[in-house]
Amino acid sequence: MPDLPTLDPIRVEQMIMALGAIGAHSGTGVWRTAYSPEWVAAQALVSDWATAAGLSPRMDAVGNLWARIDGTEGGKAIVSGSHIDTQCPGGRYDGALGVVAALAAISALTATFGRPRRPLELLSLCEEEGSRFPKAGFWGSRAITGRTTQADPEIVTDDDGAPIADAMRAIGLDPATIHTARRDDIAAFFELHIEQGPILEHANLPVAVVDAITGIRQTRVTLTGEQNHAGAFPMDLRRDPMAGFAEIAGRVIDHAHRLGRPAVTTVGRAIPWPNAPAVISRSVDFTIDARHPRPADYTLLHETHAALLAEVAARRGLTLTTDIQVDLPPTPCDPALVTLLQDISKAQGIPQLTMSSGAGHDSQQMAAVCPVVMIFVRSEGGRSHTPEEYSTIPDIMEGIRLLMVALHKRAY
Amino acid sequence: MPDLPTLDPIRVEQMIMALGAIGAHSGTGVWRTAYSPEWVAAQALVSDWATAAGLSPRMDAVGNLWARIDGTEGGKAIVSGSHIDTQCPGGRYDGALGVVAALAAISALTATFGRPRRPLELLSLCEEEGSRFPKAGFWGSRAITGRTTQADPEIVTDDDGAPIADAMRAIGLDPATIHTARRDDIAAFFELHIEQGPILEHANLPVAVVDAITGIRQTRVTLTGEQNHAGAFPMDLRRDPMAGFAEIAGRVIDHAHRLGRPAVTTVGRAIPWPNAPAVISRSVDFTIDARHPRPADYTLLHETHAALLAEVAARRGLTLTTDIQVDLPPTPCDPALVTLLQDISKAQGIPQLTMSSGAGHDSQQMAAVCPVVMIFVRSEGGRSHTPEEYSTIPDIMEGIRLLMVALHKRAY
Repeated sequence: MPDLPTLDPIRVEQMIMALGAIGAHSGTGVWRTAYSPEWVAAQALVSDWATAAGLSPRMDAVGNLWARIDGTEGGKAIVSGSHIDTQCPGGRYDGALGVVAALAAISALTATFGRPRRPLELLSLCEEEGSRFPKAGFWGSRAITGRTTQADPEIVTDDDGAPIADAMRAIGLDPATIHTARRDDIAAFFELHIEQGPILEHANLPVAVVDAITGIRQTRVTLTGEQNHAGAFPMDLRRDPMAGFAEIAGRVIDHAHRLGRPAVTTVGRAIPWPNAPAVISRSVDFTIDARHPRPADYTLLHETHAALLAEVAARRGLTLTTDIQVDLPPTPCDPALVTLLQDISKAQGIPQLTMSSGAGHDSQQMAAVCPVVMIFVRSEGGRSHTPEEYSTIPDIMEGIRLLMVALHKRAY
Repeated sequence: MPDLPTLDPIRVEQMIMALGAIGAHSGTGVWRTAYSPEWVAAQALVSDWATAAGLSPRMDAVGNLWARIDGTEGGKAIVSGSHIDTQCPGGRYDGALGVVAALAAISALTATFGRPRRPLELLSLCEEEGSRFPKAGFWGSRAITGRTTQADPEIVTDDDGAPIADAMRAIGLDPATIHTARRDDIAAFFELHIEQGPILEHANLPVAVVDAITGIRQTRVTLTGEQNHAGAFPMDLRRDPMAGFAEIAGRVIDHAHRLGRPAVTTVGRAIPWPNAPAVISRSVDFTIDARHPRPADYTLLHETHAALLAEVAARRGLTLTTDIQVDLPPTPCDPALVTLLQDISKAQGIPQLTMSSGAGHDSQQMAAVCPVVMIFVRSEGGRSHTPEEYSTIPDIMEGIRLLMVALHKRAY
């Protein structure tokens, strides 16, 4: 292998800060929702950077920005990138860092080695967070897989009921053409992203190779009992949904804890009704978010929850309704790409651990049309979705170096 | 003892319906908050009925309606009544039934036996529910005990921040004179009230003699942990206040259940923050309402809760804050009056059980200035604070008969 190019940490930091300045919010935060003026400006800046690096940028029908350099031998493309939109507000790293990393790696490779054998592309995805359009569900990557329907642009709305189609038209995109965003000519997708959790920090390691993206199921549960006076109704005659909720929430959380990593279960939302101190509740409405990256464990987790819900509701005389609101099955990363990254880490002396992602990512969608793999960079305090999220430049450079070598091995 | 007068069930039912028509709401419901036009009209109707029965009505400074017949021998007064205000909406029975019962019993006694030896008074209390002024805290009976301060009328506000003083002035009451509502010349207070719970229904009995009014402590608790991503944070590194809340709510409810009647503990209010399905909560704010009518058990209940809260918070790395928002110590009813009612029940063939009240009542306040006792009448389905609350006329007549004999024994 020829000598690899040296990456420029100052240039990487400048790009992170320049992108973070577009939609800057709450000091170190960024507020840049899909199709907003800040989002348009951020995609334009990435496009300018790509042009300067000798790539040919284009925006597809849904708003993903692709920047390509053709390969001398043609074939399917080697692609890297992440998303450019943020939470309200998010930080400078979630999403944007993967775009900066891909640009830094590809620019360094083309500057040193010129045209690759195979097409090499930067991808800045248009909407991952769902922070403006909560039901958009990986809008950009889903369009690439061809899973968005022609009806979706009018159905997917913001919290005020305005369709995403209007937001697209406002910036010159034609929602009727989103089917043209589909790609079936990708050989591999590499996504670098901040970890969003504390595992690397606790292991004192800069990067991780991601071997699977977790399965996520969010179930909305309503337990209904009998509303009564908190003083006058004896305990033995109550049908109290709060008692059922407490038992279920405690047990599903404890169950995931006892299963151990990477199982996680969260009860983040709970709304009793009427929510008054001296009234036995009529109902408690809550969510169970349960995640596991291995299909068999994912199924076991949900079967256990379903049995527990039914048993507690029956024993306590409560009416139970459940509605699965999110169900993203576990997505294994491509084993060959995982091995590739592990081997490069070893050869390059980049300390890593291999872990699954507990958060959803565009790679989960992209896996439907190509082999995918992810690289995680340590997040300080495990923070994300906040202006306080932070990764150090040395950690980031280790991640980009790992990415660059992988792109070199696959594209050159 | 001379032959007792016969009570007229049709007249009793007419009075219940006539009062229920003032502020009628939601079919069988009533919406009659303190000092509202409906409340003014209801007090006026009670005053008219009292006048027709030969009593002398007067409204005191806080708005309680007293209607008196002097006794031939003078001395302290024998008083019976309850409150005239309702929930939003409540039903026709909670409060109003005790006013109707006292009027029916006193009218029958005076019609048959004329002037009593001792003064006999009807009392229609002005505000018990706190449905318009949540912080009023037994406004009418508290004024009678002299526990309201001169500052209170400006401090006690409705949900819009308007002071109760404004509502009083609007109907011609002078808030500066509420100290004159104090009474220290009451020999006994008898309050008849619907049970508001299912104990009599389950025991298949029409009435109960109440030997104590429960102690009520409402504690507001906030557990604060660390807000994080529901996917990316392993269970073993979380400080999840929802997990702590579930454990505490489950255990305090279970503890009261195992103690058995009359212990009750209710967690009716819970507000997680930010209350989102995919976010480990930063905090959960909730209430524990725990009641027991026996002082030693009341203390034990709260000591157990305090120890549990501290232990769970420490073990789970959560910050704990607690604020006692209501603390009404247990109020025993007067033993002599309890025995009086039990003896009358036996002699008159009125089947009863003796129980404590799990709800708060004006009698709890009145106990500060005089011996008190209560009579409960069976509530269908244990319902109260709803338009559906209902007690049958035969059950009501048994309660009024018990009350009438007791008033006769004490006043004649």
